[in-house]
Amino acid sequence: MSYKVEFITRLFQKTSSKAIEHYCLTRLWHKLDNDEIKIVPQQYVNRHSDKYALTDVYFPQFNIHVEVNEPAHYSSAERIESDAVRKKEIESNTGHKLYVIDCQKELKEIHNQIDNIVSIITRALEAQQKNGTFKPWQPDAERDPEFWKLKQTISTTDEISLPNIEAICTLFDAEFNKTKRGFLRLGGLPHPKNHEYLLWWPSDKARQGWQNQISTDEEEITETHADATKKAHHYKAHLNTGQKRIVFFHHKDVLGLTSYKFKGVYAYDSQKSNANVGTVWKRICKTMNVNLTGI
Amino acid sequence: MSYKVEFITRLFQKTSSKAIEHYCLTRLWHKLDNDEIKIVPQQYVNRHSDKYALTDVYFPQFNIHVEVNEPAHYSSAERIESDAVRKKEIESNTGHKLYVIDCQKELKEIHNQIDNIVSIITRALEAQQKNGTFKPWQPDAERDPEFWKLKQTISTTDEISLPNIEAICTLFDAEFNKTKRGFLRLGGLPHPKNHEYLLWWPSDKARQGWQNQISTDEEEITETHADATKKAHHYKAHLNTGQKRIVFFHHKDVLGLTSYKFKGVYAYDSQKSNANVGTVWKRICKTMNVNLTGI
Repeated sequence: MSYKVEFITRLFQKTSSKAIEHYCLTRLWHKLDNDEIKIVPQQYVNRHSDKYALTDVYFPQFNIHVEVNEPAHYSSAERIESDAVRKKEIESNTGHKLYVIDCQKELKEIHNQIDNIVSIITRALEAQQKNGTFKPWQPDAERDPEFWKLKQTISTTDEISLPNIEAICTLFDAEFNKTKRGFLRLGGLPHPKNHEYLLWWPSDKARQGWQNQISTDEEEITETHADATKKAHHYKAHLNTGQKRIVFFHHKDVLGLTSYKFKGVYAYDSQKSNANVGTVWKRICKTMNVNLTGI
Repeated sequence: MSYKVEFITRLFQKTSSKAIEHYCLTRLWHKLDNDEIKIVPQQYVNRHSDKYALTDVYFPQFNIHVEVNEPAHYSSAERIESDAVRKKEIESNTGHKLYVIDCQKELKEIHNQIDNIVSIITRALEAQQKNGTFKPWQPDAERDPEFWKLKQTISTTDEISLPNIEAICTLFDAEFNKTKRGFLRLGGLPHPKNHEYLLWWPSDKARQGWQNQISTDEEEITETHADATKKAHHYKAHLNTGQKRIVFFHHKDVLGLTSYKFKGVYAYDSQKSNANVGTVWKRICKTMNVNLTGI
């Protein structure tokens, strides 16, 4: 089975916890009927500084979100009002559009609402195809480091998900063998063209006492250690370092497979780092050339 | 939410155990895009006397079955051969058509195969609409005894699923109150127009020691009791009885709701019944008039 078949069928299967949301997701996909359109369930969105939202369905190529509202959403004036505030906040914070499917209605009316969103997306697709900005969804290619090596420029909006550490090394022409130290695996490797840049593949799972945490908006990574002495030592060793980190954060994808997602380039945050909190890395850019040209 | 919305969305959710089968089922439904077409997962089919099959998707209005074959189906010549035998047996035993979706292929090719089945069903629908034989799927109506009372004739192919015993009584103008005896509920009630006919709502779950079993082909129901004395007594009481039974068998539908499905009219089977096995009822017809006219 091709990766795309496995990906989309497993995605449908994994998102079946809410029946009506799942129904709308499958209908949007099948009615769009274009396997170059990417569909993302449960997309993280900033509302404002201390609030965030998960939208039910997201079409990243078109900056379009869809919310599937079960009848309970219309049970009170307060609920309706708070949904409206949420919609406004999401749209103004992201510049994206949010469409709502009202599922109080009969099946035919739910279908009409979905068909309407399908027309909007189809028109947006046609406009992008016309002006040459459409980026087709290619999950197989997106996992292939050679694909990105050829492109040279990588960006967080490309949603690059490399399958393993070896693939990260391939992308930057780093020697994968150097990541091995006996039974251990190094947490990073210098960029072969400039040792000020570290290729880093942190995880939020504790590894040999190391613990990393990425903020919900992904702007900040905190590096700490369960052992106070090691934490303090690490903090001192990196104090005001000029090192930059090219980050591929470890996560599990919808298929339950491990992958490493490109998050951008991070630099030492001298204001937030301290011996108590640990070392804090702040994102400095979301787009880079893999050969470090133009940086 | 309407019953139809709840039914089809829960059906999608419940059939999500096999990812690729679920994907094809959702695509068939959304591409057909007609909520008067009934879609049934896991349909029981006779292969021959001692074998049966469950087909992945069934369209009862068109006698069309769909099998979704995962790549493993093509792993050996034996497997391919046994699938071909199975297809032949199902088609010759039922007179239905069976279409196979080969999921070894790329997403586009899977889509092409589904689109092809969608065209076939659409043509069959148009033919039925033209000659006036199309029976639209109306799950709300099908659960409403008044709907069937108006039609007068009921058949097993109508897949009538009444929500409770009261609805069965309503359909035949029987007095629901007579089903109550203190805290107990009678297992059946005579037809008000002819006491030779019993309205019967058996269950395969033991009730007060009574146990009923319906054969996989639904041609036979065996009525027995956990207590040997009661079983023998019941057997003797019905020995060579002329009683006929109008059967609504208890089951759980896809929504997890209890309902009673019409299975036809059954008569005493003098050859199979005995004090050891219990009382056996054999189906004598699948279609009847609710007022017993023409019987």
